[in-house]
Amino acid sequence: MKLVRYGARGAEKPGMIDADGALRDLSAHVSDIAGEVLVNLSALKDIDPATLPLVEGNPRYGACVGGTGKFICIGLNYADHAAESGLEVPPEPVIFAKYTSAICGPNDDIIIPRESEKTDWEVELGFVIGKKAKYVSEADAMDHVAGFCLINDVSERSYQIERSGQWSKGKSSDNFGPTGPWLVTPDEVGDFDNLGMWLDVNGERMQDGSSSTMVYRVPFLISYLSQFFTLHPGDIISTGTPPGVGLGFNPPKYLKAGDVVELGIDKLGTQKQTCVNDA
Amino acid sequence: MKLVRYGARGAEKPGMIDADGALRDLSAHVSDIAGEVLVNLSALKDIDPATLPLVEGNPRYGACVGGTGKFICIGLNYADHAAESGLEVPPEPVIFAKYTSAICGPNDDIIIPRESEKTDWEVELGFVIGKKAKYVSEADAMDHVAGFCLINDVSERSYQIERSGQWSKGKSSDNFGPTGPWLVTPDEVGDFDNLGMWLDVNGERMQDGSSSTMVYRVPFLISYLSQFFTLHPGDIISTGTPPGVGLGFNPPKYLKAGDVVELGIDKLGTQKQTCVNDA
Repeated sequence: MKLVRYGARGAEKPGMIDADGALRDLSAHVSDIAGEVLVNLSALKDIDPATLPLVEGNPRYGACVGGTGKFICIGLNYADHAAESGLEVPPEPVIFAKYTSAICGPNDDIIIPRESEKTDWEVELGFVIGKKAKYVSEADAMDHVAGFCLINDVSERSYQIERSGQWSKGKSSDNFGPTGPWLVTPDEVGDFDNLGMWLDVNGERMQDGSSSTMVYRVPFLISYLSQFFTLHPGDIISTGTPPGVGLGFNPPKYLKAGDVVELGIDKLGTQKQTCVNDA
Repeated sequence: MKLVRYGARGAEKPGMIDADGALRDLSAHVSDIAGEVLVNLSALKDIDPATLPLVEGNPRYGACVGGTGKFICIGLNYADHAAESGLEVPPEPVIFAKYTSAICGPNDDIIIPRESEKTDWEVELGFVIGKKAKYVSEADAMDHVAGFCLINDVSERSYQIERSGQWSKGKSSDNFGPTGPWLVTPDEVGDFDNLGMWLDVNGERMQDGSSSTMVYRVPFLISYLSQFFTLHPGDIISTGTPPGVGLGFNPPKYLKAGDVVELGIDKLGTQKQTCVNDA
Protein backbone atom coordinates (compact mmCIF):
# COMPACT_ATOMS: atom_id res chain seq x y z
CA MET A 1 0.00 0.00 0.00
CA LYS A 2 0.95 3.59 -0.66
CA LEU A 3 -0.75 5.83 1.87
CA VAL A 4 -0.81 9.61 1.65
CA ARG A 5 -2.23 12.70 3.31
CA TYR A 6 -3.52 15.42 1.00
CA GLY A 7 -5.16 18.81 1.19
CA ALA A 8 -4.52 22.08 3.00
CA ARG A 9 -1.85 22.17 5.69
CA GLY A 10 -3.23 21.16 9.07
CA ALA A 11 -6.39 19.78 7.46
CA GLU A 12 -4.97 16.87 5.46
CA LYS A 13 -7.22 13.95 4.54
CA PRO A 14 -6.07 10.34 4.23
CA GLY A 15 -5.64 8.85 0.78
CA MET A 16 -4.34 5.83 -1.04
CA ILE A 17 -2.53 5.55 -4.37
CA ASP A 18 -4.10 3.07 -6.78
CA ALA A 19 -2.43 0.75 -9.28
CA ASP A 20 -2.42 3.52 -11.91
CA GLY A 21 -0.78 6.01 -9.55
CA ALA A 22 -4.01 7.96 -9.05
CA LEU A 23 -5.05 9.42 -5.71
CA ARG A 24 -8.08 7.89 -3.96
CA ASP A 25 -9.89 9.28 -0.94
CA LEU A 26 -9.55 7.01 2.10
CA SER A 27 -11.46 9.19 4.57
CA ALA A 28 -14.52 6.92 4.67
CA HIS A 29 -12.29 4.28 6.29
CA VAL A 30 -9.90 6.20 8.55
CA SER A 31 -9.68 9.78 9.82
CA ASP A 32 -5.93 10.17 9.36
CA ILE A 33 -2.72 8.26 8.68
CA ALA A 34 -1.69 8.56 12.31
CA GLY A 35 -1.84 6.96 15.75
CA GLU A 36 -3.92 3.81 16.09
CA VAL A 37 -4.44 3.60 12.32
CA LEU A 38 -0.71 2.87 12.02
CA VAL A 39 -0.96 0.07 14.57
CA ASN A 40 -3.61 -1.63 12.46
CA LEU A 41 -2.53 -0.85 8.90
CA SER A 42 -3.22 -4.45 7.92
CA ALA A 43 -6.92 -3.64 8.38
CA LEU A 44 -6.63 -1.51 5.22
CA LYS A 45 -5.12 -4.24 3.07
CA ASP A 46 -8.44 -5.66 1.97
CA ILE A 47 -9.54 -2.34 0.52
CA ASP A 48 -9.38 -2.30 -3.27
CA PRO A 49 -8.21 1.26 -4.10
CA ALA A 50 -10.31 1.12 -7.27
CA THR A 51 -13.42 1.15 -5.06
CA LEU A 52 -12.41 4.42 -3.35
CA PRO A 53 -13.49 7.84 -4.67
CA LEU A 54 -11.03 9.28 -7.16
CA VAL A 55 -9.66 12.66 -6.00
CA GLU A 56 -10.06 15.26 -8.73
CA GLY A 57 -7.58 18.02 -9.50
CA ASN A 58 -4.06 18.29 -8.24
CA PRO A 59 -4.16 18.68 -4.46
CA ARG A 60 -1.21 19.46 -2.23
CA TYR A 61 0.37 16.48 -0.51
CA GLY A 62 1.06 16.79 3.20
CA ALA A 63 3.59 14.81 5.19
CA CYS A 64 2.60 11.14 4.76
CA VAL A 65 2.09 10.62 8.50
CA GLY A 66 0.37 12.76 11.13
CA GLY A 67 0.63 12.99 14.90
CA THR A 68 4.40 12.51 14.96
CA GLY A 69 5.82 12.78 18.47
CA LYS A 70 9.48 12.12 17.73
CA PHE A 71 11.46 12.92 14.58
CA ILE A 72 14.69 11.05 15.17
CA CYS A 73 17.59 11.52 12.77
CA ILE A 74 20.64 9.31 12.54
CA GLY A 75 23.87 11.22 11.95
CA LEU A 76 26.83 10.13 9.83
CA ASN A 77 25.25 6.81 8.89
CA TYR A 78 26.94 6.56 5.48
CA ALA A 79 30.70 6.08 5.55
CA ASP A 80 31.22 8.30 2.48
CA HIS A 81 29.09 11.12 3.87
CA ALA A 82 30.99 11.02 7.16
CA ALA A 83 34.21 11.35 5.16
CA GLU A 84 32.93 14.37 3.19
CA SER A 85 31.95 15.97 6.53
CA GLY A 86 35.48 15.38 7.82
CA LEU A 87 34.18 13.02 10.52
CA GLU A 88 34.56 9.32 11.37
CA VAL A 89 31.68 6.86 11.36
CA PRO A 90 30.79 6.75 15.05
CA PRO A 91 31.15 3.51 17.06
CA GLU A 92 27.38 3.55 17.66
CA PRO A 93 24.61 5.62 16.06
CA VAL A 94 24.59 9.36 16.58
CA ILE A 95 20.99 10.45 17.10
CA PHE A 96 19.66 13.97 17.03
CA ALA A 97 16.25 15.57 17.01
CA LYS A 98 14.51 17.47 14.27
CA TYR A 99 11.71 19.33 16.04
CA THR A 100 8.37 18.15 14.67
CA SER A 101 7.29 21.70 13.82
CA ALA A 102 9.70 21.38 10.87
CA ILE A 103 7.62 18.64 9.23
CA CYS A 104 5.94 19.64 5.98
CA GLY A 105 4.66 18.20 2.74
CA PRO A 106 7.02 16.73 0.13
CA ASN A 107 6.59 19.61 -2.33
CA ASP A 108 6.19 22.52 0.07
CA ASP A 109 8.70 25.36 -0.27
CA ILE A 110 12.05 25.16 1.51
CA ILE A 111 11.97 28.32 3.63
CA ILE A 112 15.45 29.82 4.02
CA PRO A 113 15.59 31.49 7.47
CA ARG A 114 16.25 35.25 7.47
CA GLU A 115 19.89 35.13 8.54
CA SER A 116 20.74 31.83 6.88
CA GLU A 117 23.61 31.56 4.43
CA LYS A 118 24.21 27.80 4.62
CA THR A 119 20.92 25.99 3.96
CA ASP A 120 21.73 22.50 2.66
CA TRP A 121 19.99 19.31 1.50
CA GLU A 122 20.09 15.64 2.53
CA VAL A 123 18.09 12.90 0.79
CA GLU A 124 17.24 10.24 3.39
CA LEU A 125 15.40 6.96 3.74
CA GLY A 126 12.83 7.41 6.49
CA PHE A 127 10.58 4.97 8.25
CA VAL A 128 7.57 5.35 10.49
CA ILE A 129 6.82 3.41 13.66
CA GLY A 130 3.57 1.44 13.58
CA LYS A 131 3.57 -0.42 16.86
CA LYS A 132 5.03 0.79 20.16
CA ALA A 133 8.61 -0.43 20.66
CA LYS A 134 10.58 -0.70 23.90
CA TYR A 135 13.61 -2.96 24.39
CA VAL A 136 12.88 -4.84 21.17
CA SER A 137 15.35 -7.23 19.58
CA GLU A 138 16.71 -6.79 16.07
CA ALA A 139 14.87 -9.99 15.10
CA ASP A 140 11.50 -8.52 16.12
CA ALA A 141 12.21 -4.95 15.02
CA MET A 142 10.42 -4.97 11.66
CA ASP A 143 7.12 -5.83 13.37
CA HIS A 144 7.17 -2.23 14.60
CA VAL A 145 7.47 -0.51 11.20
CA ALA A 146 4.36 0.91 9.53
CA GLY A 147 6.19 1.89 6.37
CA PHE A 148 8.98 3.73 4.62
CA CYS A 149 9.10 7.23 3.16
CA LEU A 150 11.31 9.77 1.46
CA ILE A 151 12.69 12.62 3.59
CA ASN A 152 14.73 15.72 2.83
CA ASP A 153 16.63 16.42 6.06
CA VAL A 154 17.10 20.11 5.28
CA SER A 155 19.95 21.52 7.38
CA GLU A 156 21.43 24.93 8.10
CA ARG A 157 25.15 24.20 8.51
CA SER A 158 26.03 27.40 10.32
CA TYR A 159 23.25 26.88 12.88
CA GLN A 160 24.16 23.20 13.15
CA ILE A 161 27.92 23.48 13.50
CA GLU A 162 29.02 27.06 14.24
CA ARG A 163 26.36 28.28 16.70
CA SER A 164 27.30 26.72 20.04
CA GLY A 165 26.31 23.20 19.42
CA GLN A 166 23.74 20.51 19.42
CA TRP A 167 22.57 19.93 15.88
CA SER A 168 18.82 20.38 16.49
CA LYS A 169 19.38 24.13 16.12
CA GLY A 170 20.30 23.66 12.47
CA LYS A 171 17.81 20.92 11.66
CA SER A 172 14.52 22.34 12.84
CA SER A 173 13.67 25.54 10.96
CA ASP A 174 10.13 25.73 9.62
CA ASN A 175 9.67 23.42 6.60
CA PHE A 176 13.06 21.73 7.13
CA GLY A 177 11.33 18.31 7.16
CA PRO A 178 9.64 17.46 3.83
CA THR A 179 8.21 13.96 4.41
CA GLY A 180 6.52 11.82 1.77
CA PRO A 181 4.74 11.79 -0.64
CA TRP A 182 3.91 8.17 0.23
CA LEU A 183 4.05 5.99 3.29
CA VAL A 184 4.85 2.67 1.62
CA THR A 185 4.24 -0.50 3.59
CA PRO A 186 7.22 -2.87 4.03
CA ASP A 187 5.65 -5.65 1.90
CA GLU A 188 5.57 -3.28 -1.05
CA VAL A 189 9.11 -1.93 -0.49
CA GLY A 190 10.71 -5.36 -0.25
CA ASP A 191 14.50 -5.12 0.10
CA PHE A 192 14.94 -1.75 1.81
CA ASP A 193 18.69 -2.32 2.00
CA ASN A 194 19.17 -1.79 -1.71
CA LEU A 195 17.23 1.32 -2.71
CA GLY A 196 18.73 3.86 -5.08
CA MET A 197 18.47 7.46 -3.82
CA TRP A 198 19.27 10.75 -5.56
CA LEU A 199 18.94 14.50 -5.20
CA ASP A 200 19.22 17.24 -7.85
CA VAL A 201 19.56 21.00 -7.42
CA ASN A 202 18.40 22.98 -10.46
CA GLY A 203 18.64 19.79 -12.49
CA GLU A 204 22.21 18.98 -11.51
CA ARG A 205 22.74 15.65 -9.76
CA MET A 206 24.23 16.25 -6.29
CA GLN A 207 23.51 13.00 -4.44
CA ASP A 208 23.45 9.60 -6.11
CA GLY A 209 23.63 6.81 -3.57
CA SER A 210 22.02 3.67 -2.28
CA SER A 211 20.74 2.46 1.05
CA SER A 212 23.13 -0.46 0.53
CA THR A 213 25.98 1.68 1.92
CA MET A 214 24.16 2.54 5.13
CA VAL A 215 26.24 1.63 8.20
CA TYR A 216 23.59 1.02 10.89
CA ARG A 217 20.59 -0.68 9.25
CA VAL A 218 16.90 -0.28 9.99
CA PRO A 219 16.31 -3.29 12.31
CA PHE A 220 19.43 -2.47 14.30
CA LEU A 221 18.35 1.17 14.65
CA ILE A 222 14.90 0.21 15.97
CA SER A 223 16.39 -2.13 18.54
CA TYR A 224 19.07 0.41 19.47
CA LEU A 225 16.71 3.38 19.88
CA SER A 226 14.23 1.31 21.87
CA GLN A 227 16.87 0.77 24.56
CA PHE A 228 16.78 4.50 25.34
CA PHE A 229 13.07 5.31 25.09
CA THR A 230 9.74 4.00 23.85
CA LEU A 231 9.06 4.45 20.15
CA HIS A 232 5.41 5.34 19.51
CA PRO A 233 3.14 5.04 16.46
CA GLY A 234 3.86 7.94 14.13
CA ASP A 235 7.44 8.48 15.24
CA ILE A 236 9.67 9.10 12.22
CA ILE A 237 13.24 7.85 11.99
CA SER A 238 15.39 9.31 9.23
CA THR A 239 18.39 7.11 8.63
CA GLY A 240 21.08 9.48 7.38
CA THR A 241 22.28 10.70 4.02
CA PRO A 242 24.71 9.44 1.38
CA PRO A 243 27.47 11.71 -0.01
CA GLY A 244 26.83 14.84 -2.04
CA VAL A 245 25.51 17.41 0.42
CA GLY A 246 26.38 21.06 -0.21
CA LEU A 247 28.76 21.14 2.75
CA GLY A 248 30.89 18.46 1.13
CA PHE A 249 31.80 20.48 -1.97
CA ASN A 250 34.92 22.63 -2.18
CA PRO A 251 33.89 25.38 -1.95
CA PRO A 252 30.58 24.39 -0.32
CA LYS A 253 27.32 24.92 -2.24
CA TYR A 254 24.24 26.21 -0.45
CA LEU A 255 20.65 26.90 -1.40
CA LYS A 256 19.31 30.32 -2.33
CA ALA A 257 15.85 31.63 -3.17
CA GLY A 258 14.65 30.32 -6.51
CA ASP A 259 16.66 27.11 -6.42
CA VAL A 260 14.69 23.96 -7.15
CA VAL A 261 15.48 20.76 -5.25
CA GLU A 262 14.25 17.41 -6.56
CA LEU A 263 14.89 14.09 -4.86
CA GLY A 264 13.73 10.51 -4.88
CA ILE A 265 14.23 6.99 -3.56
CA ASP A 266 13.34 3.82 -5.46
CA LYS A 267 9.75 2.74 -4.68
CA LEU A 268 9.14 5.75 -2.39
CA GLY A 269 8.35 8.46 -4.94
CA THR A 270 9.84 11.89 -5.46
CA GLN A 271 9.78 15.37 -3.93
CA LYS A 272 10.22 18.78 -5.55
CA GLN A 273 10.80 21.93 -3.53
CA THR A 274 11.38 25.56 -4.44
CA CYS A 275 13.56 27.62 -2.13
CA VAL A 276 12.12 30.90 -0.86
CA ASN A 277 13.37 33.53 1.56
CA ASP A 278 11.47 33.77 4.84
CA ALA A 279 9.06 36.68 4.96
CA MET B 1 -3.66 31.66 38.04
CA LYS B 2 -2.32 28.22 38.81
CA LEU B 3 -3.49 25.78 36.16
CA VAL B 4 -3.09 22.02 36.39
CA ARG B 5 -3.94 18.78 34.63
CA TYR B 6 -5.03 15.91 36.85
CA GLY B 7 -6.19 12.32 36.53
CA ALA B 8 -4.98 9.18 34.82
CA ARG B 9 -2.12 9.44 32.35
CA GLY B 10 -3.34 10.27 28.87
CA ALA B 11 -6.78 11.23 30.21
CA GLU B 12 -5.91 14.29 32.30
CA LYS B 13 -8.60 16.89 33.02
CA PRO B 14 -7.96 20.61 33.40
CA GLY B 15 -8.02 22.13 36.85
CA MET B 16 -7.27 25.30 38.76
CA ILE B 17 -5.78 25.78 42.22
CA ASP B 18 -7.86 28.02 44.49
CA ALA B 19 -6.71 30.53 47.11
CA ASP B 20 -6.55 27.78 49.74
CA GLY B 21 -4.42 25.54 47.52
CA ALA B 22 -7.31 23.18 46.78
CA LEU B 23 -7.88 21.63 43.38
CA ARG B 24 -10.93 22.74 41.38
CA ASP B 25 -12.30 21.13 38.23
CA LEU B 26 -12.01 23.44 35.22
CA SER B 27 -13.42 21.05 32.63
CA ALA B 28 -16.73 22.90 32.25
CA HIS B 29 -14.73 25.82 30.80
CA VAL B 30 -11.93 24.23 28.75
CA SER B 31 -11.16 20.73 27.53
CA ASP B 32 -7.43 20.83 28.30
CA ILE B 33 -4.57 23.15 29.23
CA ALA B 34 -3.23 23.00 25.69
CA GLY B 35 -3.29 24.58 22.23
CA GLU B 36 -5.74 27.43 21.71
CA VAL B 37 -6.58 27.56 25.43
CA LEU B 38 -3.01 28.77 26.03
CA VAL B 39 -3.41 31.53 23.45
CA ASN B 40 -6.44 32.85 25.33
CA LEU B 41 -5.54 32.19 28.95
CA SER B 42 -6.78 35.66 29.88
CA ALA B 43 -10.30 34.37 29.11
CA LEU B 44 -9.98 32.28 32.30
CA LYS B 45 -9.03 35.19 34.56
CA ASP B 46 -12.59 36.15 35.39
CA ILE B 47 -13.36 32.72 36.76
CA ASP B 48 -13.50 32.67 40.55
CA PRO B 49 -11.94 29.30 41.47
CA ALA B 50 -14.30 29.14 44.46
CA THR B 51 -17.19 28.71 42.01
CA LEU B 52 -15.62 25.61 40.42
CA PRO B 53 -16.34 22.07 41.66
CA LEU B 54 -13.91 20.94 44.34
CA VAL B 55 -12.04 17.80 43.31
CA GLU B 56 -12.32 15.15 46.01
CA GLY B 57 -9.58 12.75 47.00
CA ASN B 58 -5.95 12.95 46.03
CA PRO B 59 -5.69 12.55 42.26
CA ARG B 60 -2.50 12.18 40.29
CA TYR B 61 -1.17 15.35 38.68
CA GLY B 62 -0.16 15.16 35.04
CA ALA B 63 2.23 17.47 33.27
CA CYS B 64 0.76 20.97 33.59
CA VAL B 65 0.47 21.42 29.82
CA GLY B 66 -0.71 19.10 27.06
CA GLY B 67 -0.12 18.93 23.35
CA THR B 68 3.53 19.90 23.58
CA GLY B 69 5.28 19.84 20.19
CA LYS B 70 8.74 20.98 21.23
CA PHE B 71 10.54 20.42 24.54
CA ILE B 72 13.55 22.72 24.20
CA CYS B 73 16.27 22.61 26.82
CA ILE B 74 18.98 25.21 27.31
CA GLY B 75 22.37 23.74 28.20
CA LEU B 76 25.00 25.19 30.51
CA ASN B 77 22.90 28.26 31.29
CA TYR B 78 24.26 28.73 34.82
CA ALA B 79 27.93 29.66 35.06
CA ASP B 80 28.49 27.53 38.17
CA HIS B 81 26.85 24.48 36.62
CA ALA B 82 28.99 24.83 33.49
CA ALA B 83 32.04 24.90 35.75
CA GLU B 84 31.01 21.74 37.62
CA SER B 85 30.53 20.03 34.23
CA GLY B 86 34.04 21.07 33.22
CA LEU B 87 32.67 23.29 30.44
CA GLU B 88 32.63 27.00 29.59
CA VAL B 89 29.48 29.09 29.37
CA PRO B 90 28.87 29.10 25.61
CA PRO B 91 28.97 32.36 23.62
CA GLU B 92 25.31 31.84 22.71
CA PRO B 93 22.70 29.42 24.10
CA VAL B 94 23.20 25.70 23.59
CA ILE B 95 19.85 24.15 22.80
CA PHE B 96 18.99 20.48 22.78
CA ALA B 97 15.83 18.45 22.52
CA LYS B 98 14.13 16.32 25.11
CA TYR B 99 11.75 14.12 23.11
CA THR B 100 8.19 14.84 24.22
CA SER B 101 7.53 11.17 24.99
CA ALA B 102 9.62 11.79 28.12
CA ILE B 103 7.07 14.22 29.57
CA CYS B 104 5.28 12.99 32.70
CA GLY B 105 3.55 14.23 35.81
CA PRO B 106 5.48 15.97 38.59
CA ASN B 107 5.24 13.07 41.01
CA ASP B 108 5.41 10.12 38.61
CA ASP B 109 8.24 7.65 39.17
CA ILE B 110 11.66 8.30 37.67
CA ILE B 111 12.18 5.17 35.59
CA ILE B 112 15.84 4.14 35.48
CA PRO B 113 16.50 2.51 32.06
CA ARG B 114 17.64 -1.11 32.13
CA GLU B 115 21.31 -0.51 31.36
CA SER B 116 21.57 2.86 33.08
CA GLU B 117 24.19 3.50 35.75
CA LYS B 118 24.28 7.29 35.58
CA THR B 119 20.74 8.66 35.97
CA ASP B 120 20.98 12.21 37.31
CA TRP B 121 18.75 15.14 38.29
CA GLU B 122 18.44 18.81 37.26
CA VAL B 123 15.97 21.26 38.81
CA GLU B 124 14.98 23.79 36.15
CA LEU B 125 12.78 26.80 35.62
CA GLY B 126 10.50 26.03 32.68
CA PHE B 127 8.10 28.16 30.73
CA VAL B 128 5.37 27.40 28.24
CA ILE B 129 4.64 29.25 25.00
CA GLY B 130 1.16 30.75 24.82
CA LYS B 131 1.17 32.61 21.53
CA LYS B 132 3.05 31.63 18.36
CA ALA B 133 6.47 33.31 18.16
CA LYS B 134 8.64 33.88 15.08
CA TYR B 135 11.38 36.52 14.83
CA VAL B 136 10.14 38.26 17.98
CA SER B 137 12.14 40.94 19.77
CA GLU B 138 13.26 40.67 23.36
CA ALA B 139 10.93 43.58 24.16
CA ASP B 140 7.88 41.69 22.89
CA ALA B 141 8.97 38.25 24.05
CA MET B 142 6.93 38.01 27.25
CA ASP B 143 3.69 38.43 25.27
CA HIS B 144 4.32 34.89 24.06
CA VAL B 145 4.56 33.20 27.49
CA ALA B 146 1.54 31.36 28.91
CA GLY B 147 3.22 30.63 32.21
CA PHE B 148 6.08 29.16 34.20
CA CYS B 149 6.53 25.70 35.69
CA LEU B 150 8.92 23.46 37.58
CA ILE B 151 10.83 20.83 35.58
CA ASN B 152 13.19 18.02 36.53
CA ASP B 153 15.42 17.60 33.48
CA VAL B 154 16.30 13.99 34.31
CA SER B 155 19.47 12.99 32.47
CA GLU B 156 21.44 9.80 31.88
CA ARG B 157 25.05 11.01 31.78
CA SER B 158 26.50 7.97 30.06
CA TYR B 159 23.90 8.13 27.28
CA GLN B 160 24.33 11.90 27.05
CA ILE B 161 28.12 12.11 27.02
CA GLU B 162 29.74 8.72 26.39
CA ARG B 163 27.47 7.18 23.73
CA SER B 164 28.47 8.87 20.44
CA GLY B 165 26.96 12.20 20.96
CA GLN B 166 24.06 14.54 20.76
CA TRP B 167 22.55 14.96 24.18
CA SER B 168 18.96 14.02 23.27
CA LYS B 169 19.97 10.37 23.70
CA GLY B 170 20.54 10.93 27.43
CA LYS B 171 17.64 13.32 28.01
CA SER B 172 14.66 11.48 26.57
CA SER B 173 14.11 8.20 28.39
CA ASP B 174 10.51 7.52 29.43
CA ASN B 175 9.50 9.74 32.39
CA PHE B 176 12.67 11.86 32.12
CA GLY B 177 10.54 15.01 31.95
CA PRO B 178 8.47 15.63 35.13
CA THR B 179 6.64 18.91 34.41
CA GLY B 180 4.48 20.81 36.88
CA PRO B 181 2.52 20.58 39.16
CA TRP B 182 1.29 24.05 38.19
CA LEU B 183 1.39 26.26 35.13
CA VAL B 184 1.62 29.64 36.85
CA THR B 185 0.76 32.72 34.81
CA PRO B 186 3.42 35.47 34.61
CA ASP B 187 1.33 38.00 36.58
CA GLU B 188 1.32 35.62 39.55
CA VAL B 189 5.04 34.76 39.28
CA GLY B 190 6.20 38.38 39.17
CA ASP B 191 10.00 38.63 39.14
CA PHE B 192 11.01 35.36 37.45
CA ASP B 193 14.66 36.42 37.58
CA ASN B 194 14.90 35.94 41.31
CA LEU B 195 13.31 32.60 42.18
CA GLY B 196 14.93 30.26 44.67
CA MET B 197 15.26 26.67 43.41
CA TRP B 198 16.33 23.51 45.21
CA LEU B 199 16.54 19.75 44.88
CA ASP B 200 16.95 17.05 47.55
CA VAL B 201 17.82 13.37 47.16
CA ASN B 202 16.69 11.22 50.10
CA GLY B 203 16.32 14.41 52.15
CA GLU B 204 19.83 15.68 51.44
CA ARG B 205 20.07 19.07 49.71
CA MET B 206 21.90 18.70 46.40
CA GLN B 207 20.92 21.84 44.49
CA ASP B 208 20.28 25.19 46.12
CA GLY B 209 20.28 27.99 43.59
CA SER B 210 18.38 30.90 42.14
CA SER B 211 17.23 31.95 38.72
CA SER B 212 19.18 35.16 39.40
CA THR B 213 22.38 33.43 38.27
CA MET B 214 20.96 32.34 34.93
CA VAL B 215 23.14 33.53 32.03
CA TYR B 216 20.66 33.81 29.13
CA ARG B 217 17.34 35.08 30.51
CA VAL B 218 13.81 34.21 29.48
CA PRO B 219 13.03 37.13 27.09
CA PHE B 220 16.38 36.72 25.36
CA LEU B 221 15.82 32.99 24.95
CA ILE B 222 12.40 33.48 23.35
CA SER B 223 13.77 36.02 20.90
CA TYR B 224 16.82 33.85 20.20
CA LEU B 225 14.91 30.61 19.62
CA SER B 226 12.36 32.35 17.43
CA GLN B 227 15.12 33.24 14.95
CA PHE B 228 15.58 29.53 14.21
CA PHE B 229 12.01 28.23 14.15
CA THR B 230 8.45 29.09 15.10
CA LEU B 231 7.52 28.53 18.74
CA HIS B 232 3.98 27.17 19.07
CA PRO B 233 1.45 27.15 21.93
CA GLY B 234 2.34 24.35 24.32
CA ASP B 235 6.05 24.30 23.51
CA ILE B 236 8.08 23.96 26.70
CA ILE B 237 11.42 25.67 27.22
CA SER B 238 13.52 24.49 30.16
CA THR B 239 16.15 27.07 31.01
CA GLY B 240 19.00 25.08 32.48
CA THR B 241 20.07 23.99 35.93
CA PRO B 242 22.10 25.56 38.74
CA PRO B 243 25.01 23.64 40.35
CA GLY B 244 24.61 20.47 42.36
CA VAL B 245 23.85 17.75 39.83
CA GLY B 246 25.14 14.25 40.52
CA LEU B 247 27.74 14.48 37.77
CA GLY B 248 29.37 17.42 39.56
CA PHE B 249 30.27 15.53 42.72
CA ASN B 250 33.62 13.80 43.18
CA PRO B 251 32.98 10.94 42.90
CA PRO B 252 29.71 11.51 41.00
CA LYS B 253 26.41 10.53 42.66
CA TYR B 254 23.71 8.85 40.63
CA LEU B 255 20.16 7.70 41.30
CA LYS B 256 19.21 4.10 42.12
CA ALA B 257 15.90 2.36 42.68
CA GLY B 258 14.26 3.48 45.91
CA ASP B 259 15.83 6.92 45.96
CA VAL B 260 13.42 9.80 46.51
CA VAL B 261 13.93 13.09 44.67
CA GLU B 262 12.17 16.24 45.86
CA LEU B 263 12.50 19.62 44.19
CA GLY B 264 10.89 23.02 44.10
CA ILE B 265 11.03 26.56 42.79
CA ASP B 266 9.57 29.59 44.58
CA LYS B 267 5.94 30.17 43.52
CA LEU B 268 5.93 27.14 41.20
CA GLY B 269 5.29 24.33 43.70
CA THR B 270 7.18 21.12 44.36
CA GLN B 271 7.71 17.67 42.85
CA LYS B 272 8.45 14.34 44.52
CA GLN B 273 9.62 11.30 42.55
CA THR B 274 10.57 7.78 43.55
CA CYS B 275 13.19 6.03 41.44
CA VAL B 276 12.31 2.59 40.08
CA ASN B 277 14.09 0.17 37.78
CA ASP B 278 12.50 -0.29 34.38
CA ALA B 279 10.53 -3.51 34.08
